[in-house]
Amino acid sequence: MGDRYKILSTIKSPKDVKALNEAEIKELCAEIREKLIDVVSINGGHLAPNLGIVELTVALHRSFNAPKDSIVWDVGHQGYVHKMLTGRYEQIDTIRQKDGIAGFPKRSESVYDDFNAGHSSTSISAAYGIARGKQLKNDNSYTIAVIGDGSFTGGLAYEGLNNAGRYKKNFIVILNDNKMSISNNVGAMAMNLSHMRIKPSYIRIKRRTEKILSHIPIIGNFFKKILKRSKSKIKNLIYKNTLFDFLGYTYLGPIDGHDMDELESAMEAAKQYNEPVLIHVVTKKGKGYEPAENHPKEFHGIGRFDIETGEPLSISKGFSYKFGKYLCSMASKDNNICAITAAMTLGTGLSDFSKMFKTRFFDVGIAEEHAVTFACGLATRGIIPFFAVYSTFLQRAYDQLIHDAAIQNLHIVICVDRAGIVGDDGETHQGLFDVSMLNTIPGASIYSPCYFSELKHSLNAAAYMCDGLAAVRYPRGTELYKPDDIDKTSINFDVYGEGDIILVTYGRLFSYACKAKEILASEGINIKIIKLCRIKPIDTKAVEEASKGSKVFFFEESLLAGGIGESFGYDLKKHSFKNYYKIHAIKDTFVQHQTVEQALEEYMLDHKGMVKIIKENI
Amino acid sequence: MGDRYKILSTIKSPKDVKALNEAEIKELCAEIREKLIDVVSINGGHLAPNLGIVELTVALHRSFNAPKDSIVWDVGHQGYVHKMLTGRYEQIDTIRQKDGIAGFPKRSESVYDDFNAGHSSTSISAAYGIARGKQLKNDNSYTIAVIGDGSFTGGLAYEGLNNAGRYKKNFIVILNDNKMSISNNVGAMAMNLSHMRIKPSYIRIKRRTEKILSHIPIIGNFFKKILKRSKSKIKNLIYKNTLFDFLGYTYLGPIDGHDMDELESAMEAAKQYNEPVLIHVVTKKGKGYEPAENHPKEFHGIGRFDIETGEPLSISKGFSYKFGKYLCSMASKDNNICAITAAMTLGTGLSDFSKMFKTRFFDVGIAEEHAVTFACGLATRGIIPFFAVYSTFLQRAYDQLIHDAAIQNLHIVICVDRAGIVGDDGETHQGLFDVSMLNTIPGASIYSPCYFSELKHSLNAAAYMCDGLAAVRYPRGTELYKPDDIDKTSINFDVYGEGDIILVTYGRLFSYACKAKEILASEGINIKIIKLCRIKPIDTKAVEEASKGSKVFFFEESLLAGGIGESFGYDLKKHSFKNYYKIHAIKDTFVQHQTVEQALEEYMLDHKGMVKIIKENI
Repeated sequence: MGDRYKILSTIKSPKDVKALNEAEIKELCAEIREKLIDVVSINGGHLAPNLGIVELTVALHRSFNAPKDSIVWDVGHQGYVHKMLTGRYEQIDTIRQKDGIAGFPKRSESVYDDFNAGHSSTSISAAYGIARGKQLKNDNSYTIAVIGDGSFTGGLAYEGLNNAGRYKKNFIVILNDNKMSISNNVGAMAMNLSHMRIKPSYIRIKRRTEKILSHIPIIGNFFKKILKRSKSKIKNLIYKNTLFDFLGYTYLGPIDGHDMDELESAMEAAKQYNEPVLIHVVTKKGKGYEPAENHPKEFHGIGRFDIETGEPLSISKGFSYKFGKYLCSMASKDNNICAITAAMTLGTGLSDFSKMFKTRFFDVGIAEEHAVTFACGLATRGIIPFFAVYSTFLQRAYDQLIHDAAIQNLHIVICVDRAGIVGDDGETHQGLFDVSMLNTIPGASIYSPCYFSELKHSLNAAAYMCDGLAAVRYPRGTELYKPDDIDKTSINFDVYGEGDIILVTYGRLFSYACKAKEILASEGINIKIIKLCRIKPIDTKAVEEASKGSKVFFFEESLLAGGIGESFGYDLKKHSFKNYYKIHAIKDTFVQHQTVEQALEEYMLDHKGMVKIIKENI
Repeated sequence: MGDRYKILSTIKSPKDVKALNEAEIKELCAEIREKLIDVVSINGGHLAPNLGIVELTVALHRSFNAPKDSIVWDVGHQGYVHKMLTGRYEQIDTIRQKDGIAGFPKRSESVYDDFNAGHSSTSISAAYGIARGKQLKNDNSYTIAVIGDGSFTGGLAYEGLNNAGRYKKNFIVILNDNKMSISNNVGAMAMNLSHMRIKPSYIRIKRRTEKILSHIPIIGNFFKKILKRSKSKIKNLIYKNTLFDFLGYTYLGPIDGHDMDELESAMEAAKQYNEPVLIHVVTKKGKGYEPAENHPKEFHGIGRFDIETGEPLSISKGFSYKFGKYLCSMASKDNNICAITAAMTLGTGLSDFSKMFKTRFFDVGIAEEHAVTFACGLATRGIIPFFAVYSTFLQRAYDQLIHDAAIQNLHIVICVDRAGIVGDDGETHQGLFDVSMLNTIPGASIYSPCYFSELKHSLNAAAYMCDGLAAVRYPRGTELYKPDDIDKTSINFDVYGEGDIILVTYGRLFSYACKAKEILASEGINIKIIKLCRIKPIDTKAVEEASKGSKVFFFEESLLAGGIGESFGYDLKKHSFKNYYKIHAIKDTFVQHQTVEQALEEYMLDHKGMVKIIKENI
């Protein structure tokens, strides 16, 4: 390895990056790209964003002095390069794996990670907090937020940008404009950035002029001074008219994000202002790896793939895919059905829908709050909007679900993708809060299907058998084990097997419960499983059925507090149930990155855990 | 009444407003102002925002055809005038009272209320949804969002503005710029609006020029045509450089918001564009009532007051006031303590703090998401940030509490004001979700003091005895009944009285429980009260104590699902408690506007309800 990555393997800290000459830097960037492709092809992860940001990251660590200067990465999926340059090169092969380094910046992992990330649009707010905290501690170092154009569609980014716009000190925002977010971002901002990209770069003009002038002796220096004095005037002439000026930032750009010289010049220039600076850096997502350059969306976050061809090693037609299919089928029969995504057309399975029903498809950008309120507006006109969103990102719209949807009893359907454990993306991305969140909301209906067939029925029920806020939640990946003797399931709940030991569960854990049932049966222990599909409101007949048990075990792939297990337990209590009742769920903790199977095993939510728990308690 | 409000009393619908002549309109506006002052002085409510928007509302109902054209009010506290002009004049005296009309727009109340409001910054998203819904239904009517400059600091407004900026049809945003939000809004946007206010109005210039030109016969019409053609060019010359142009809007303004002619001209002009239009209207908050003009913050939302002097009829030095005092005292001893507000300096009791500790006070604008992430940034530098926020508005920051605070275990303190029932502001403002919301979050600590002394200790405990996310929640209003024999309370829980009938509760409901205890005692029924102050994590000793009871009643001023009652019940179960356990809380419903006392009575959470429930169940 030392041989293949000659320079990269010698980088122990940013100090080593600063010591390199121009040729070595070029070589370093090439090695980083090679390593990135190598690692992600094996571990899966975020490839295209990291390939695009190689030079920018190297320039940051040359121009600034981390960790004294703070670098805050937005979303954080572009932090692999940063990790390699800050003492974690040797661990990079463990990225996203159990006990390995995380796929996102993590304070507990390194002093160079100034703020955790995972969700979008937080960097400016966090960096501004860091900057003000430093000021209170008389620390004059720089604070830099690095944020993509996609994240800029999120309202939080704007809130931070606006609030920090009046600040005066050592605060730099770097807009990493890769011309495309996860999906194409939609909105006026994106359109305007594209206009700005083709303007001449102020930095470039300034450097070129200075170079020419310095060749004229004596007069050169005089002109240089004049130029320096009129700097802001020239800049104003060329660069006003941007959102950033309006919000109080000195705008520097557009900068070629793959030109080291230009990047470092811009950063040096940014240090000189006594007001916040925004550097607009234009990068190419996937840069240096042809398959990723050509298909940046597909190579944004990816599973294992073949390096030569760029082809993924396994294609799963899981719940997202099926959801997209079913929704297309529903939409072809009902003109009122619309689909909304927050910049996740591909991830949520809506690609076909977006092509088949152009006028009824809305990509609103990374803006989950807006997505829900917008859906509510549509609903007032008799439209049935389906907002497909990852569970973890739905957290952003909690207030809108209550205030705009539920209070008005407007009929919208939230399709909660990646519900439950998500695996290697780790703690920021686990879908463990949506159940508690939705369960609290008055009047909401929640479905948690286990199989594709149930997903189909749940979508139908959510559209036509509910009023107000309805949610259908389904896991990452595909449907799991289904015993041969199950042919049809119901939309509220099902009872499977016989016995006075009762296991209650919902969603994909039912598949594990079935395996547990078989294992236990082989040891002479018979259990009855109650599988909930509608988890709110809970069907009282399901509670009645459970109240017949001598021991009731509730297994839940969600947080215990505020989950369905507590509600179910309280309902049992109301049915005068006095026997054993125990909930097995995630208890007051965040689940670290590892595979889904590893996490379910760790928290004893797989068949092995179920068998063990039941045997120990009967 | 008919006499005093000669014109206003004849207005049954917007049609009647359209029929009035210039003099009558003037008189109508005067009558509306008189009525507003009259009603709010008796009922309390939002006065200054409504006084400022009289002419704007009248102009809207003259220029547009509601309810065919849709008017979406942001926040909605400025909707009283709208209500009076849309058939609710005769009910306006019942506003904010039990069974009366609501203090905010409400779809269920009138077809003229196109979208419910209460929280800020939703109008553009909702209106855009309505506009796209109309488009799908081939409805070409106009959709208008009316939003204040304060609401513009909220990220959701920006998300909506950005997303709608590429739309082409009949979509108008009216920025009601009253130069001041609830508190002075902070941020670059506010600063820039102040620059824009002093620019000449395009509409005014255009009208004046047209008037002059039309006096010149023949040539006049020719010039008019030329003028019309070069309209956009002239406009661009004067008005580019705004955020709104950047985001795709035709900017019209600034318009004098108290000049009916100018308002109507701008609205007519806005109808002619085939792209979204933003009309920048400058209004005076409190216009026409001197005390409100001079003290717009105090007259934003106000209780009953004396019309002659403007003096409030009752001044309560409640929990917000005490919180402010205690925090000042803490901050004077500890330089690391900072305070953050989201445009609620006055409401959250931070006025003194803002003056005494200028460098440690941050008003971030109406931007709760940013407030939390910003606080987390501060916390990374060893600062202890206290973010004071109303319970209902904290819903906006659910994701930031999880993703930025809890996952990183950053130590921030959320001071949850207006926790529980808030009274006449109604369903959008009830503080009934914070408990479930915070209870789910791993590692969080929650205190819910009943008395001022407990508030003080809770703040101290949150600052110095917790790590990670800590919250202290306290109700609107002041401390209530405290029996003479209670001199000191503890920070986790207290036991009060003897008996095997046990009542468990927390927060201000303890005062009602004490009264219930006395009433029951007088009838020979003795109960023991367990008062929780720290509600997460629940002290196991409190559970042990409760498990001794023959019957346990849990009373909670929060939603039942996900609340502390469910967690407590499950903890009891784990202590092998098999006896009666019943939770009394708000069950899966939204609480309507009425006084706090009326609501507590309706949901049987006051002493009368407690007595009744206990007597019926023993």
